Amino acid sequence: MPRHLLGLQGLPAADLRELLHAADHADTLATPLAGRIVANLFFEDSTRTRTSFAVAAKRLGAEVVDLWGFASSINKGETLIDTATNVEAMGVDVITVRARQSGAAELIARHVMCPVINAGDGKHEHPTQGLLDTYTFAEAHGRLDHFDLSGLTIAIVGDIAASRVARSAIAAMTTLGAKVICVGPAPMAPPSLERLGVHVARTLDEVVESVDAVMMLRIQFERHEEGKTDAKKDAESANRGGVLASVREFRDLYALTPERAARMKDRAIVMHPGPINRGLEIDADVADGPRSVILRQVANGVRVRKAVLAWAVGG
Amino acid sequence: MPRHLLGLQGLPAADLRELLHAADHADTLATPLAGRIVANLFFEDSTRTRTSFAVAAKRLGAEVVDLWGFASSINKGETLIDTATNVEAMGVDVITVRARQSGAAELIARHVMCPVINAGDGKHEHPTQGLLDTYTFAEAHGRLDHFDLSGLTIAIVGDIAASRVARSAIAAMTTLGAKVICVGPAPMAPPSLERLGVHVARTLDEVVESVDAVMMLRIQFERHEEGKTDAKKDAESANRGGVLASVREFRDLYALTPERAARMKDRAIVMHPGPINRGLEIDADVADGPRSVILRQVANGVRVRKAVLAWAVGG
Amino acid sequence: MPRHLLGLQGLPAADLRELLHAADHADTLATPLAGRIVANLFFEDSTRTRTSFAVAAKRLGAEVVDLWGFASSINKGETLIDTATNVEAMGVDVITVRARQSGAAELIARHVMCPVINAGDGKHEHPTQGLLDTYTFAEAHGRLDHFDLSGLTIAIVGDIAASRVARSAIAAMTTLGAKVICVGPAPMAPPSLERLGVHVARTLDEVVESVDAVMMLRIQFERHEEGKTDAKKDAESANRGGVLASVREFRDLYALTPERAARMKDRAIVMHPGPINRGLEIDADVADGPRSVILRQVANGVRVRKAVLAWAVGG
Repeated sequence: MPRHLLGLQGLPAADLRELLHAADHADTLATPLAGRIVANLFFEDSTRTRTSFAVAAKRLGAEVVDLWGFASSINKGETLIDTATNVEAMGVDVITVRARQSGAAELIARHVMCPVINAGDGKHEHPTQGLLDTYTFAEAHGRLDHFDLSGLTIAIVGDIAASRVARSAIAAMTTLGAKVICVGPAPMAPPSLERLGVHVARTLDEVVESVDAVMMLRIQFERHEEGKTDAKKDAESANRGGVLASVREFRDLYALTPERAARMKDRAIVMHPGPINRGLEIDADVADGPRSVILRQVANGVRVRKAVLAWAVGG
Repeated sequence: MPRHLLGLQGLPAADLRELLHAADHADTLATPLAGRIVANLFFEDSTRTRTSFAVAAKRLGAEVVDLWGFASSINKGETLIDTATNVEAMGVDVITVRARQSGAAELIARHVMCPVINAGDGKHEHPTQGLLDTYTFAEAHGRLDHFDLSGLTIAIVGDIAASRVARSAIAAMTTLGAKVICVGPAPMAPPSLERLGVHVARTLDEVVESVDAVMMLRIQFERHEEGKTDAKKDAESANRGGVLASVREFRDLYALTPERAARMKDRAIVMHPGPINRGLEIDADVADGPRSVILRQVANGVRVRKAVLAWAVGG
Repeated sequence: MPRHLLGLQGLPAADLRELLHAADHADTLATPLAGRIVANLFFEDSTRTRTSFAVAAKRLGAEVVDLWGFASSINKGETLIDTATNVEAMGVDVITVRARQSGAAELIARHVMCPVINAGDGKHEHPTQGLLDTYTFAEAHGRLDHFDLSGLTIAIVGDIAASRVARSAIAAMTTLGAKVICVGPAPMAPPSLERLGVHVARTLDEVVESVDAVMMLRIQFERHEEGKTDAKKDAESANRGGVLASVREFRDLYALTPERAARMKDRAIVMHPGPINRGLEIDADVADGPRSVILRQVANGVRVRKAVLAWAVGG
């Protein structure tokens, strides 16, 4: 059976700990991927995630082929599956998949024999991101030994309902014993999230003083612009005041400002999957401040991806 | 003299057999390209072909530089030749060329000293594709020993007149003794093709039962859309029924349906250079069925490109 | 202190000579970058410069990650600094930066700990281009021993005011003792350039017979089109005659024609940073003629970049 990593939901604590423990020792790995080729199959562009996988793979001795520019072949009607089986037939050893469609990685994994690593699929999961978030949370609170997060609480703030990052982080962190509070307005943090084993709060102010970490999600105003006709956009630019009003409203209740950060517990940390909108969901002074572990998350991303790649090829 | 591979037309049988034989032993090659740099100079994007060359080159120990994003410099008026001589001046060891212009690879080969491999030029040739098609046909019929295709017949179906893939396959297969039948309506399979040493048929039904392979070409409806103004496209979308009618008409006479595939000889195979249009020129059940060697073609593509690259550098 | 190369202005002659001397011996370098990763952080596309850095890095044993496709994340509002600190956090060893903004490389260098090499920033500098131009000038006139350019004169022709290439070349060449004459109409070669230690001339004819090198700059007519609305462009296409008139006017005074090239001194050379506009600022017969060292510049580009990369990592 190929070792796929498609998501963190349903993964037992023992499996999560195995990967996180391997990440903790990623620097001691030699080149278990020497002579292997990792294909980054990115149907949706993501320079950061693609580069992080590339750096991890190269550090392990692998060669990397980047498959991009699918605009043309997708226009030609080729399916995700055909593209993936073609790449596999070329003899690559691992496929990382990024796609707009939820379930894309699993679909591909059902059709190829080599390991498939989900690098983000629609609104579903982004498991290596979830692992690096979990690793960073554990690291900041001295839990690298057993990755037991019991007694720790994290607030995830923003559009949780649409976030694959949140979904993966919630799965791993709750499984490892953390308390997770989803913070946002009802459409972004609906009560139904509680089925995932989390708590829901309507304002950041009510939880900011008690949590051990605040993980801000990116506000994706640009998503709302996609698919609109120019006519609609023109009509709306007249209504720009409305958007600004909702930004102001969002900031009032959810932005991580210096004032709110100052109220956090002594050792509490600030996380963000990036890229950040300074002055929108998080202020520059907080992103660059002493509580911020945002760049530590990026560094741990390479660590985690090294561990996952080595595991995938059986290393 | 640098060892270019610009096309298969006019190549003697001995030369074809040398390359195909080398492809058969490609797995035994060590790293004859260690310390060499292969430049993929793709003026026209092709993720599959570029990746296949990259995998082949890396397996042989080469480094690869991908040159893409020519939109800008072509807009700046730089010529194909200038780009190629520049890349050569940087000290690369092999150049693969993909371009919309027929003859682009030969033009470049006349201006550089390093080996040039044609990775598809306009409607002219795509020699590594022709070699992999020939290899796969030989492999399926137990002809890997001498690559003698005499007694074997292949039908190539679709827009042969516009297809560089067909042109290269026809050259190699006829030279090695196969009988080639071009199947399509007159504009796509004109009688003038017979000058290439092939037969022409007007329906797939009249040949499907007697051939040893059917190679479907991709129907490129999108080509007809290129270069049209939006106004024209709008006018035509009203006329979409007309396009659908011609699709229906094409399928009636040429599509490789399960019914037609069932009438093929026992060991006859189904080939397609990809990307395929399921439900258009070929049905999914046939593309994924037991006769299909489509993914085998992809795997053999890496094998052939390894052999060609090693040959080009004198290995 | 990390060893950045941000510009050539202000660099002492001894430092310039150290880099140029290292470039002269670049072929003797083994693989001082083995195990290192060079990140090409190109916010502005440049296939040639990116490829030249990639070839140089790979020749030295480094792995390369290309960061492109920033359209999306820049649209998302991410800053240059955030992108660079992220890439550094992934553990890369050297960052090359290309950007539209003057000062981008220095800005990034202030925020990361790894070496930063400016690969062109707005209208500011392009130091490796300046070094390769200087190297090529010295090479053609037998000055590789000490890189002392005294007694030599070069004319730089075209839009000097907007050219980072000119700015870097002027800095290095004047520091090493060459006389530099900037040739162009007043808006392109303003008298204020004299503060850089150069002379200004209004026609190429008045200097062409006395100089040891003519370096033509690319005329970037396309720049004038950027940022214009379609309405403006439409209005202007009616006025295309005006543009043609200014092309004719420019050619009259500044183009390097065969006639002008024939009047150059015996050993005087023709340089151009590329990509060239044949028939615009330079005629094909001159670009491809015996005085032209244009491809030599490209080859020396790899040489210089190898030296700079090795120096940056302390080699």
